[in-house]
Amino acid sequence: MIQQRRPTREGVLDAAAKVAAILPPTPLLPVEIDGVQCWAKAEVLQPVGAFKIRGAWHRLSALDEEERVRGVVAVSSGNHAQGVAWAAQRLGIRATIVMPRNAPQVKLNATRALGADVVLYERPEEDRDEVAARLIETSGATLVHAFGDPWVIEGQGSAGIEAEAQLGRSPSRFVACCGGGGLAAGLALACPDSAIHVVEPEGWDMVGQSLAAGEIVRVGANPPATICDALQPDATKPINLGVLQGRAEPGVSVTDEEVRAAQRFAFAKLRLVVEPGGAAALAAALAGKVPLDADTVILLTGGNTDAASYAATLAGG
Amino acid sequence: MIQQRRPTREGVLDAAAKVAAILPPTPLLPVEIDGVQCWAKAEVLQPVGAFKIRGAWHRLSALDEEERVRGVVAVSSGNHAQGVAWAAQRLGIRATIVMPRNAPQVKLNATRALGADVVLYERPEEDRDEVAARLIETSGATLVHAFGDPWVIEGQGSAGIEAEAQLGRSPSRFVACCGGGGLAAGLALACPDSAIHVVEPEGWDMVGQSLAAGEIVRVGANPPATICDALQPDATKPINLGVLQGRAEPGVSVTDEEVRAAQRFAFAKLRLVVEPGGAAALAAALAGKVPLDADTVILLTGGNTDAASYAATLAGG
Repeated sequence: MIQQRRPTREGVLDAAAKVAAILPPTPLLPVEIDGVQCWAKAEVLQPVGAFKIRGAWHRLSALDEEERVRGVVAVSSGNHAQGVAWAAQRLGIRATIVMPRNAPQVKLNATRALGADVVLYERPEEDRDEVAARLIETSGATLVHAFGDPWVIEGQGSAGIEAEAQLGRSPSRFVACCGGGGLAAGLALACPDSAIHVVEPEGWDMVGQSLAAGEIVRVGANPPATICDALQPDATKPINLGVLQGRAEPGVSVTDEEVRAAQRFAFAKLRLVVEPGGAAALAAALAGKVPLDADTVILLTGGNTDAASYAATLAGG
Repeated sequence: MIQQRRPTREGVLDAAAKVAAILPPTPLLPVEIDGVQCWAKAEVLQPVGAFKIRGAWHRLSALDEEERVRGVVAVSSGNHAQGVAWAAQRLGIRATIVMPRNAPQVKLNATRALGADVVLYERPEEDRDEVAARLIETSGATLVHAFGDPWVIEGQGSAGIEAEAQLGRSPSRFVACCGGGGLAAGLALACPDSAIHVVEPEGWDMVGQSLAAGEIVRVGANPPATICDALQPDATKPINLGVLQGRAEPGVSVTDEEVRAAQRFAFAKLRLVVEPGGAAALAAALAGKVPLDADTVILLTGGNTDAASYAATLAGG
């Protein structure tokens, strides 16, 4: 494996400047939870409906001319896919995205609508990284990993730089949903004085378990079902754990029902459409699983969800 | 009737400064309609979920000590109610709100949760202005009319000042939902070079008809049903028509089905929850009923809707 460069705070600041040049800051909205007024960062309002556009833009805009010609490959359940497709379309780069066949239809359609080639794989039978590796072998394209990439980590961290500027001080803590740990690692680098709380779906808390074990723990053979389609990687990567180890708070996990309650809360109190994975951090906050104070920033990371499943979630309240 | 002062552009600028001191600007989000990239102003992200907080704040914060002690009375189907209740709570003023018994439950609950006294009336049998007048007679409270009030008009116009600053130039046109014409009149004063398109529910296009007739036209005896609960005043007021006459474009009306399609569009493309009345302007844009260009600003005015009816709207797509 090629030696990766390490993501740095300077890289996050560079990413924040690049992101600010093309995307307005997402709003930091006041939200009251159990009598505490804290903040929700509405990443669902990004053009692709998720924070993933940040890391994708930082990574793709750093490619040189030769790399741009060879194109990019990404693996994603849908939000990173759209972020990469959006950045690639803007830069005139060919993007091939490896997506699970059971990804939400809305995510598959949106990725194709942004001009990307979509290659489907079967989850969980097929190893999506292997599918991507085969594509890269033939094309020489650059892999844009959804979380285990220094540029992607730095790019996601730009959300922390933005939140700090909006709040006028360092957040006391970030509460962030966590798949592989790209966002969490980026926030940790962005705001060295802020506590980092990672929130994962029950049974898929591989970052939390890895933090506790001090080494990478992979998901078991028969993981439980989760509605958080965006938070299902098999395991985190050394580059992510390397940043988070000794830096993040102990991991927190949330149930499907807690996630649905958070989606309903965001509907009624914030008038925001939040997908299950995007509501995980809010779910932890509402369930009393993380401390809250006036300088807490909860990330609402994505809002790409099929109308039918969203309607069912609302009806279940 | 007491002679009202006239709303002015100076008043709108004053309101914009007062609003900016307590509320962050609502985002101006890019939105592509029929290949044209224009802008959506997300007023649904205001703390009470609607732009009405602007006019209420401008009006209530201008009351003197004696008036504050006597309290305020407002009549509203729910969004102005919450705006007035929010401002009153912040200023320590007692607020009594006259609301239709068939207002969405979510609006009734939210108004009470903000500490206001709610007095119900039967729509359309009872005249809500008469109910309010009786309350004022006994208490000496100040009436905060939902649209026919110079401060309220100026306050709503602050949305136009904000949009102009965000766009970096005068919008070519505003597309705004229209009940009594408070917002439309405010925008007309705020941005003298911008075209103003008022959008009303079919059968309730009393501002459009009044503009065409050159005098106030009241709704007929048996108006059709509409899902736009926020856009059902009987008629506009002289103060509103006075500003809009010769200034606004011919009125546009939209059907319930066009409104529902706009709610679904906002869900899927903007990840915003928009109530029927709040989606009327977007509905007109999507239906090709207003011209669009790169400097067009469409207002998404409110997002307070019951989960069950919203779920039904999504399912109907």
